[in-house]
Amino acid sequence: MVIKVHGPVQSPAVLKVIACLKEKELDFELVHVNLPAGDHKKEPLISLNPFGQVPAFEDGDLKLFESRAITQYIAHTYADKGNELLPNDPKEMAIMYVWMEVESTKFDTPGFNLSFEIALKPLFFGVATDEAAVTENEEKLGKVLDVYESRLKESKYLGGESFTLADLHHIPVANYLMGTKVKSLFDCRPHVSDWCADILARPAWSKALDYLSAETEKLPHEYGLCISRLINMG
Amino acid sequence: MVIKVHGPVQSPAVLKVIACLKEKELDFELVHVNLPAGDHKKEPLISLNPFGQVPAFEDGDLKLFESRAITQYIAHTYADKGNELLPNDPKEMAIMYVWMEVESTKFDTPGFNLSFEIALKPLFFGVATDEAAVTENEEKLGKVLDVYESRLKESKYLGGESFTLADLHHIPVANYLMGTKVKSLFDCRPHVSDWCADILARPAWSKALDYLSAETEKLPHEYGLCISRLINMG
Repeated sequence: MVIKVHGPVQSPAVLKVIACLKEKELDFELVHVNLPAGDHKKEPLISLNPFGQVPAFEDGDLKLFESRAITQYIAHTYADKGNELLPNDPKEMAIMYVWMEVESTKFDTPGFNLSFEIALKPLFFGVATDEAAVTENEEKLGKVLDVYESRLKESKYLGGESFTLADLHHIPVANYLMGTKVKSLFDCRPHVSDWCADILARPAWSKALDYLSAETEKLPHEYGLCISRLINMG
Repeated sequence: MVIKVHGPVQSPAVLKVIACLKEKELDFELVHVNLPAGDHKKEPLISLNPFGQVPAFEDGDLKLFESRAITQYIAHTYADKGNELLPNDPKEMAIMYVWMEVESTKFDTPGFNLSFEIALKPLFFGVATDEAAVTENEEKLGKVLDVYESRLKESKYLGGESFTLADLHHIPVANYLMGTKVKSLFDCRPHVSDWCADILARPAWSKALDYLSAETEKLPHEYGLCISRLINMG
């Protein structure tokens, strides 16, 4: 049984899954989805993800979508492989879920919007960055990172003293933002800055970045060039 | 050890937690948070929920926030109480997580925005409904419910053949929307309509509504009157 991940590996949501698979040292097959060609709105993807989004995921006959549901499945099902990504204690597990929800409902939108405005829009679509949107999202992200700074004074990671899925889910967007001026929002908060450096330095994330580079090289030159610039920014 | 829920019980996010506690037949103490007075931005709430939002939750020395993290904690920790809200099979659990993510990232925003525009804004704030926002959110919600209609042709509930947290999380917003013109978006999709009627007819939800009414009667007359109208709408 081969695990299959459907999506362009450059998508932050797809990279959440790849990062998790690398932490677990699991083999997988990537099925590239050409977003500019609209492949996410066609078969076979639309049957795997009825919202026509990436990623989609297969493990034998199990078909999943939604990146955070996929990483939870991987972390629970392959608990004995690679690095532990879940706490053992039920109370610590509950606290991890709190911070997973925070990433999903508070961090991800301003974080992704900033990656999109500053990096993706000019690089991929040749459209100018909307500076008002950048300011608005920087304000939102700054308030979220204020709470993270307080939290990370109490514990090394968001869920407690161990790295968990709650931290992992931040890596792809944080990685992209490190190559932009938004990095200063992380740098000026010392505990956030240390946490971010720590999670981006994980060996599994280095492997995910190597994989991202290798996959990007397979893409048509112009598309790949844009992606390479984006990766190198992060 | 008494479970404490902090928040105005009328909030859909707080009601997610109340609905879950009623399913599990667990006693709890409600600590009302007066949002118009800004109590959510002050102690003791701000130490329980650093984002200054409701709900917050205490079970002995464990302190949580984020409604979906709280319901997961309750469902796992009190698995042997009341109604089962989690699948036993790990693959079904993974599928439940998919639809929990869908509720959080796709359904909740347009659903809540519609409750806010049509019900909360005119009733609480005396501000006219923004009809353009209603149209925009109805379109978004309609697309989400199209996917639900397909899903609910395959299985009775979102996660499979059993009611789970994935369904429960929809109840408070769906309940409020049933008293508005948005009900037609549910009615015109027969499987969605049956599912919605089923989850709103659960005995535990009736108990949650009775509790909501009783708590609302304790509020100052004008505030309570608005809430009563809102509840009766749903």
